This record gives sequence, structure tokens and C-alpha cells, in this order.
Amino acid sequence: MRKAMEAVRLDALILRLPENVVLLSGFWPMIGASTLVFPRDGKASILIPGCWEREASPSIWEAEPQFFEFGLLGAPDPAGVLHDFLSSSARKGQWKRIGYEGSFTALAPSWQSGEILIPAESTKAFYETACPDSELVDATSLIHTERSRKTAFEAAKLRVTAEISCIGLEVFQGMVEPGIRGIDLVAAVEGEIMRKGIGYQGAQRVRAYAQVATGSQETGIAYRMHEISTTRPLQDGDVAMLELGVVADGYWADRTRVRVAGTASDEQAKIFATVAAGQQAAIDLIRPGVTGAQADEAARSVIRDAGYGDAFPHTTGHGLGFAYHESLVRLSPTSKDVLEEGMLTSVEPGIYLPGPGGFRIEEDVLVTQDGSEVLGPFRKEL
Amino acid sequence: MRKAMEAVRLDALILRLPENVVLLSGFWPMIGASTLVFPRDGKASILIPGCWEREASPSIWEAEPQFFEFGLLGAPDPAGVLHDFLSSSARKGQWKRIGYEGSFTALAPSWQSGEILIPAESTKAFYETACPDSELVDATSLIHTERSRKTAFEAAKLRVTAEISCIGLEVFQGMVEPGIRGIDLVAAVEGEIMRKGIGYQGAQRVRAYAQVATGSQETGIAYRMHEISTTRPLQDGDVAMLELGVVADGYWADRTRVRVAGTASDEQAKIFATVAAGQQAAIDLIRPGVTGAQADEAARSVIRDAGYGDAFPHTTGHGLGFAYHESLVRLSPTSKDVLEEGMLTSVEPGIYLPGPGGFRIEEDVLVTQDGSEVLGPFRKEL
Repeated sequence: MRKAMEAVRLDALILRLPENVVLLSGFWPMIGASTLVFPRDGKASILIPGCWEREASPSIWEAEPQFFEFGLLGAPDPAGVLHDFLSSSARKGQWKRIGYEGSFTALAPSWQSGEILIPAESTKAFYETACPDSELVDATSLIHTERSRKTAFEAAKLRVTAEISCIGLEVFQGMVEPGIRGIDLVAAVEGEIMRKGIGYQGAQRVRAYAQVATGSQETGIAYRMHEISTTRPLQDGDVAMLELGVVADGYWADRTRVRVAGTASDEQAKIFATVAAGQQAAIDLIRPGVTGAQADEAARSVIRDAGYGDAFPHTTGHGLGFAYHESLVRLSPTSKDVLEEGMLTSVEPGIYLPGPGGFRIEEDVLVTQDGSEVLGPFRKEL
Repeated sequence: MRKAMEAVRLDALILRLPENVVLLSGFWPMIGASTLVFPRDGKASILIPGCWEREASPSIWEAEPQFFEFGLLGAPDPAGVLHDFLSSSARKGQWKRIGYEGSFTALAPSWQSGEILIPAESTKAFYETACPDSELVDATSLIHTERSRKTAFEAAKLRVTAEISCIGLEVFQGMVEPGIRGIDLVAAVEGEIMRKGIGYQGAQRVRAYAQVATGSQETGIAYRMHEISTTRPLQDGDVAMLELGVVADGYWADRTRVRVAGTASDEQAKIFATVAAGQQAAIDLIRPGVTGAQADEAARSVIRDAGYGDAFPHTTGHGLGFAYHESLVRLSPTSKDVLEEGMLTSVEPGIYLPGPGGFRIEEDVLVTQDGSEVLGPFRKEL
């Protein structure tokens, strides 16, 4: 990140989105009330509500924490505290150009996802007032680019989250049968991931976002990124498709599995095998130097050759890691993104047909020095 | 809302935050990819990704829905679709002044709370390009004010959510005992609310955000709005405090209950009774015309008289309804907010002490014509 900042002459970054604070400090803020200043030279510092001191202190790598009283009667105005923190940092560092999060339009929540604090239109003006001698520069694109290449430390964290996601996949595989409802599957998957995930490999805060579409009407008509889980019981032969986001201490996994309740038809079995083969073809191709379009085509050609090309109407994958979806990289027919070591992409082809239903399988694949690694490997069974 | 718009000469509003789209259309968008234009005169219209047509259509009261292909290969650029939608609306309506969401800094997620789309700094410029003959005006404060007074329709929706929250309170009351872990309580409460809440009184999308702090160290040292739930088993005499946000189809409830595992000490029992009495005193006082400071003092004086004044370091309540927390109204020692019929406020005094632990009880109280109504009444037992 510091090299990238040097290339565009940024002296510091001001970060408050939880996903970017964890990126450069190690601490995953609760709702967005913490702010990190990350200079190109010298030590970072981070302003944190004092009520989270016990959780924050052990997770910070190197930033100097500064705690302030928050949310209590008589506590100072948080805006004033932040103003002083920023202005003294900018003055001390004599920063000429400061990058900030001007254009993040899709957010990753923190553990308490019922509420999130965000920068608004007025945020830039606030920063300008606090740092009157600095030029404020939108660093959104720089941050997205730098965080798309995961370090070994980050890969290890993401591997832990992917392994935790398998707890949910296991619950799902075991529960799909006639009579069960989509929402029962959601509740069971999310609950078991929290119960068993917290404490796994030291994970402190784990949350799952499961969605289960059921039956051919819900799963087959059109691909939907976000499903609505219902109370309709599964019938024999119905598809159930689990779309699962999991976050552990700020690091995300994104998985999909699909099952048929009771007996699968021959066509359902053929579709499932085709999706799995297409996914495997893309995974086998992924290595540094491969483009997003090439990886997409590896999966797409298998599906096309089996006669299902028109039933695969979406892209093959997307970056992730500090959020459920990241804008870099993209595996799509038109993607010119070039895979590099350390990038993490989902690989998630699907086939969606009105009769048999919708079928998608999704893994998170890390680009390694000479190939790829599926994080949190887990069996695929219809 | 239309009267308020007239008073400040706004011809229309552009809304995309899920919490504001549901406010004025009845449809609760999935992640923020829908946009509502709400004119002062004439019918509203709303642009919605086509994949949610089945869920959106029956929930919209009066806005004209317009669906667009979203997320599929070959679909048009969503920004272009939105640009055309806004520019044709503004031209047709000859809007001179348009209000938009310029300063929302705390967001309510939609059902899929693993991801949320938000307006960014660039949003205003985008609106200006699409509506070149209109002045863009930050309407955040107007929206907050108008939505603080709930209509009878909204009160009914909020009553349903509060009743659904009781499903979780019941689970919590029954489960707290030595050996159980905070995270077990969280998973059980959230799961049961989803399983039984969806379908209750027609609710379609229900999600809960539970946090359980346990033991005197976690609950007693300081008040924290957002707790971290752990894997430490409860010991005999340990406090467990449930902080619970629930959303059903866009309408929120905010509840707190506290229990002691095994046997409560005499001091714990006295503290609990004091908190309950303080809460009741505030509820008994609440009616139109009472100020936020008066309601706060009603609770605070009971706690002060019992000798625990210093151990109640936070405000007594806050508005809510379209979000977990709303900025209007505030029940605090310095609040000049005047309660009006239709306002909804939490009433949540607490006492936090290192030895016995932290104790808070929270209800959502609707201001009625001549008094108040606790939404979703539920017993209080230590």
C-alpha cells in the first residue's frame, strides 16, 4: 500500500469503513465509529471508542490506538474528537495530499450488521476543515486495487473463514429433504456457523448471511444475487440452493451449494455434473497470467458444449476478501483482468432452467505462485 | 411528507436507502439497488431490478414500478438506466428543486445485511447530471423529521415487528442458565425469530440481530451499545444481557432483557427492580407534550433515589422505526424534543456495576393520543 501511495504522491490515508480499517490495522471496528490515519511514512494511528478497548488492543498490528469516551452522558462530541485527531495528525505529518474513501458504494458490514456508520457527502468537507493545508483525493480505486492482492497473512485469515463456512455447508448437506423449509435451512446454517465458528483457529467474531432459494420457480426462472428465503416446505424433487456469505474478524468467504430433496431426476443430475465440471475446468486453468475472460470461458465452454449455454446468464466469478463481493477481479466474457498471485476470486458457474430448477456451485479460489488453491475444500453432492 | 416538501419548496425526492424507499413506497429493497422518485404532485415511480418483481409488486402501495434487467450478461449498464429514469422523471415533472439523501451517516440494512449499496460523494453529481435543470437539496433532516411521526399503518407494522421480537425474548428467558454461552443464546434467539417470524401476520422478510453480553466483566464495566458475544460459559450468578434488533419488512424493534444464570444475589434483585421501576415511571409519563428531558428524568430520578444514579451513564431512549436507531426523538437529560402522537421511542434505563454486573431493560413505546402503548408487551423477570 505504501508503494502505491508513493506512486500517486499520497502522504496519508484516512479510513473509516470497517473493511478498510481491518485491511491496514488488523482491528475490525464494530459499526464504523473508528477512524484510521495511515501515513506513507511513520506509524499509523487509530481513534477507537473506548468501550471496545479490550477487543481492539490485542488485534492491532502496529497502529497507535487512541481511545475516546463514546456514547455516555457527558462524553465529548465525537465529531470534535475526530476533528482534533485528524488535524493534529495532518499537522504533525505535514501532509500535502490525503486519500479518503470517496466512492465506496457497496459496503461490507461489521459484526453488528443491523446498523452501519458511513461517510456521507459531507465527509470530504469535514476532512478538509480538519486538514486545511492538505488536498483531499478520492483513493477508492487505489484501495480496491491494493487490497485485491492478498498477503500471506490475509490468505491465512481467509482460509480460516472458508473453513468456518464449511460448518454451514455440512449442515445444509445434511438437512435438505422433503418437508423442510428454506428458512429452517437459513437459521440452522447461520446458527451453527456462529456456534462453532467463534473460537475456531482463534476467530473472535463470526457471522453468516445465508439465503436458501427452493423449488424450480424460485431457483430456475432467473439468477438472483440475493434470494429471499421462504416458509414453503420442500417437495420431493425440489432444488434447494444455498448462497452463503461468512465473515470472521473482517475476512469474508462466499460459497454456494445446491441439493435436491428426495430423488433427483436424470436431467437434474446431468445439469449438476455439468456445473461441477465447468467449475473444475476454470479452477484447473487459474494461475498467474490467466485473464478473467479465459477463466470464464473455461467454465462456460463446458456448459455450452453440454447444451446449456443459454441457461448460464451470469459471470463466472468476482473478487472478494474484505467484502462479500469486491470489484477486482472479474471472471466474465469481457474481463481483461489478469490474475496475479494472491488474488482471490469466486468460481461460481450455474445453470438455471424452469423445469429442473437452478444449480450453482461456488468456491473461493486463491491464485498461488504456479496455480490455485480452493480455500476450505468441501465435497459437492447433489 | 408532501406538506413538508411544500413548506421547503421541494418538487420531488430521490430516495435509494432501503429505509427511505420503504417509508414512501411500501417496498423494502434488497440491497439498495432500487430508486424511488417521489414528487410533491402526482404519482411516485420506482426503478427496481427485475429479478425482484415477484416480491416487489404486491408490496408497493402506489408508486409506479419500472423493472430493469440487472446482474445478467448483456444487461444494460445500471447507471445508464438510472440516469434515463431520473432525467425523464425530472423533465416530465419540470422539477426545480429536488431533495436527496445527502447526510445519512447511520444506515439500516435490508434483509441481506451482508452487503449494502449506499450513495457516495459522487451521488449528488450523478443526480445533477441526470437532472440538469433542477437544484439538488440535501433533504436528510426533512426525511428524519417526517418519519419520526408514525402513521397508523406504520404503527401497525411496528407492532407486528415488536410482537415478533417477543419470540426471541421468550427463547432468551427460557435458556439462560449456568453452562450456556453467549453465542448459543444469540444463535437460538436469531434462529427462532426467523423461523417463527416469517409468516407471522403476513411478515415476509424477518431478520434479528442479537448480542448477548455475559458476566459482570462484560456487562458491568461500561455501557456498550454493541456487545460482542463470546464462547465463555455462564457461571452461577452471572448476568446475561440480550440486546436485540429485529426487522420485519423494513420496520424495526429494539428490545433488551437481562437474566441471571442460577441464583441472583439480593443486590442483583434490587438493581433489577430499580431499573424496572425507573422504566415504568418513564412509560407512565409519556404522552403528547412531554419533553425528552422530562421522560428521561422520570426514569433517572427513580434510579438516583435508589442510590444508583452514577451507575446509569447513558440516555434513557431514542427514536426508531425505519432503523434500529433514529435521531428523533431523544430521551436524555438535555433533550428539548417534544413528544407527539405517533412518535416511537425506546425506553431503556440501565444500571452497570463491576460486582453485580450490568442490567438494562428496553421497550419500544408508541406515543398515543392521550398516553402511550408498549409495543409487543413482554414480561420482565430476572
